Amino acid sequence: MERTFDLVVLGGGPAGYVGAIRGAQLGMRVCLVEEKKVGGTCLHEGCVPTKVLLEVAGFLEEVARSREFGVSLPPPAIDAEILARHRNSIVNRLYLGIQALLKKNRIEVHAGRGVLADPSTVEVRESPEAPSRLLSGKNILVATGSRPRPWPGLPFDHVSVLDSTDAIGFLSSGKKVGIIGGGVVGVEFSDLFQSLGGEVTLFEKADHLVPLEDPELLEILRKEYERRGMAVFTSCDLSRLAPEAGGVRVFFAREKEERSLWFDAVLVAIGRLPNLDALNVDRLGLPLAPGGFLKVDSRQWTGVGGIHAAGDVTGGMMLAHAASHQAVVAVERMAGKNPEPSDPLRIPRVVYSHPEVASVGITAGDAQRQGLSVREGRFPLMANGRSLIHGERRGMIKIASCPESGKILGFQGIGAGVSELVAMGALAMSLPDGLGVLTGTVFPHPTVSEAVWEAAEDVMGRSIHR
Amino acid sequence: MERTFDLVVLGGGPAGYVGAIRGAQLGMRVCLVEEKKVGGTCLHEGCVPTKVLLEVAGFLEEVARSREFGVSLPPPAIDAEILARHRNSIVNRLYLGIQALLKKNRIEVHAGRGVLADPSTVEVRESPEAPSRLLSGKNILVATGSRPRPWPGLPFDHVSVLDSTDAIGFLSSGKKVGIIGGGVVGVEFSDLFQSLGGEVTLFEKADHLVPLEDPELLEILRKEYERRGMAVFTSCDLSRLAPEAGGVRVFFAREKEERSLWFDAVLVAIGRLPNLDALNVDRLGLPLAPGGFLKVDSRQWTGVGGIHAAGDVTGGMMLAHAASHQAVVAVERMAGKNPEPSDPLRIPRVVYSHPEVASVGITAGDAQRQGLSVREGRFPLMANGRSLIHGERRGMIKIASCPESGKILGFQGIGAGVSELVAMGALAMSLPDGLGVLTGTVFPHPTVSEAVWEAAEDVMGRSIHR
Repeated sequence: MERTFDLVVLGGGPAGYVGAIRGAQLGMRVCLVEEKKVGGTCLHEGCVPTKVLLEVAGFLEEVARSREFGVSLPPPAIDAEILARHRNSIVNRLYLGIQALLKKNRIEVHAGRGVLADPSTVEVRESPEAPSRLLSGKNILVATGSRPRPWPGLPFDHVSVLDSTDAIGFLSSGKKVGIIGGGVVGVEFSDLFQSLGGEVTLFEKADHLVPLEDPELLEILRKEYERRGMAVFTSCDLSRLAPEAGGVRVFFAREKEERSLWFDAVLVAIGRLPNLDALNVDRLGLPLAPGGFLKVDSRQWTGVGGIHAAGDVTGGMMLAHAASHQAVVAVERMAGKNPEPSDPLRIPRVVYSHPEVASVGITAGDAQRQGLSVREGRFPLMANGRSLIHGERRGMIKIASCPESGKILGFQGIGAGVSELVAMGALAMSLPDGLGVLTGTVFPHPTVSEAVWEAAEDVMGRSIHR
Repeated sequence: MERTFDLVVLGGGPAGYVGAIRGAQLGMRVCLVEEKKVGGTCLHEGCVPTKVLLEVAGFLEEVARSREFGVSLPPPAIDAEILARHRNSIVNRLYLGIQALLKKNRIEVHAGRGVLADPSTVEVRESPEAPSRLLSGKNILVATGSRPRPWPGLPFDHVSVLDSTDAIGFLSSGKKVGIIGGGVVGVEFSDLFQSLGGEVTLFEKADHLVPLEDPELLEILRKEYERRGMAVFTSCDLSRLAPEAGGVRVFFAREKEERSLWFDAVLVAIGRLPNLDALNVDRLGLPLAPGGFLKVDSRQWTGVGGIHAAGDVTGGMMLAHAASHQAVVAVERMAGKNPEPSDPLRIPRVVYSHPEVASVGITAGDAQRQGLSVREGRFPLMANGRSLIHGERRGMIKIASCPESGKILGFQGIGAGVSELVAMGALAMSLPDGLGVLTGTVFPHPTVSEAVWEAAEDVMGRSIHR
């Protein structure tokens, strides 16, 4: 039996379910196929549970420094079971929310494994033995996501060789933990494991953490991590990871010195692989980009029939909000709208470390290397009242802007709360004279957001408080 | 001896010192006269110290609910002396910063009481007996600020009848405290006193707290305050406050019932009076607005000679950032620039309660009453992941916008962190199609800021998660 829809969505993560809802809002008949749970990696194994835990980590950091502001508390006892329950209760509340939204938007959800059988048909089986259902769609949105990339030759055993999903439930207290890879995932879990009592060593090949982000900000983060007692090894060549005595030994070279360290467990956070298994890539002729991700055009079309793709399976930044945005672009294109293409330069990026790091666009340094006319405005958060109130003394906000046009090229920040400010940078980047608009805005006092105004004024050489 | 400047600033608060710095940046020779400390009420007795204390209050609230997320802590002991030292250390760091900025900008600071002797001369005395110095300026910026308004017939005794300055050092633990006036000051101190162990009763004449703000948001705050054990009496007629047994008895009528309650201390927070004593208002013919504040035009000119005024002495919102902004407008006008006038509708307003309340512009209800074309978009924060992570379940974001033009008329929010988001509302209000710009921006996940996007999309009837 074959059922027909305007849109069949394969995968129920932040690309899939958001694309499905936008499709329904545009009047499409939509179905969505998901093998596990709607909400995807982001909700169940990624962004949301990690941020719940990092919020608790931040609280523990506050407790540790509370004597400074006159509050006496003993070192807290942490009940891992209650913490897990708390984490799950937030995830479940949002999970119920998504289910309700899908229902409200009359989206048929098919539980089961979907396979792209031809350019307009998804074949679904609830279990390998179950009979298949055929869902046919004028349009297909592929949103099958990604999975953690293992260390070559060392499969995840989920006990001492962990992927990011395992890491969410890992009890780091009293354990030696090696973090293999200092990208966003590695940096966030280092923060968490250290806060929960682990002894953390962080390995990164590049010369600074989160290699695609601004070295200056990440140097501040590294110093903070070292102050907290973590070992941070950048410019580090990992030669081998080998199981040993119930744990893992990591062999590495740094500054020409070869060493090895033993860990109770290692988290391998060296990137993610696209989930292509169900897509019959070769048979359907779906094009791949370098790295093996699905290749799409600027409006998420694969070039094959009505097949569009969004989210991690298409590579790039692999961020939930990028995925949702790409899905909206894809579905609006299907509906014959003419959406603006999703521009990676305008997708904000956040590291939920303590302090947070957030950015969008490019740095002044990047702009100079590209031969662009640019001036950098900056403001140190130690001159911002609210940041001091938050106990923040290290952070800063930077804005890269073309002084002639007022065009904003990028925004970078490190400090308490910068995750909530970066969208303003993204917004300002869309305006012809974002700088003029920022400097013409009145920011409330005392807030961290004032530092955005000061950095913008600093581009013009007239910051009040710098 | 008379000294001559391009600009003489009378008063060193957020209007005065910011105006002085902008003047210096514009090439003026500037001096500033301040009787107490530069930084003014805001830094030494207002915004900054209260927010330091409210940050600690927020931390105590987190400690109280930490069992929810698996962290066991006993009720904390608070050392009032260390807390005061912490508060002073932040204030002092910022105070040193302002002094350094004034020096760097070569602004002469004259310590002493300044009196406006004629439209271009300020007469300064370091003490009543000291000889006076005359400072003459082509331009004068009056920024003398304001002081708490006492209850008629009941002067502040600073022990049981407190003004907002006293309240900063007041130890509320175990005390019955009456808060006279449910405006911003009363609401913030209620929050603080309750968190620090006081038994708080809040009296407000109007039918909701912070009468000039959106009743819907303030009703959420009232419920939260009542949940925390405060007594909140709105629509309340205070007939009399009388000293009694080392404290104060408050006589009031509510729902036709007359009652009285006794308090160890009352905080009288019923507004502020302009500091006009030093201005020779009558002799110089300075115009006054209703309420007795200095009257200025849209670029802060008093209409008399080169005398401009900014900040609390001119009434209005009496917010630090409004004061600074007005001062910049005044000084740029003096310098022959043509600054945009300061528009009260674009000044954000924040209540630093738990949860925070923040707004800018007008509500959809206001707009309807004004006969404007408006649609309201809203998003409940219980559907926002980061808000749940922050333990926030009550909040919401609202946007009032004209659906035809995309013009944004106002932004209102209640919830953890909305103080840092309201500037984005102010920014969007300045754009011809703020709504289109907001909906076209990608917001990072998970952040509270996403709720701004959802509320903007909701104006268009296409919020994804509502």
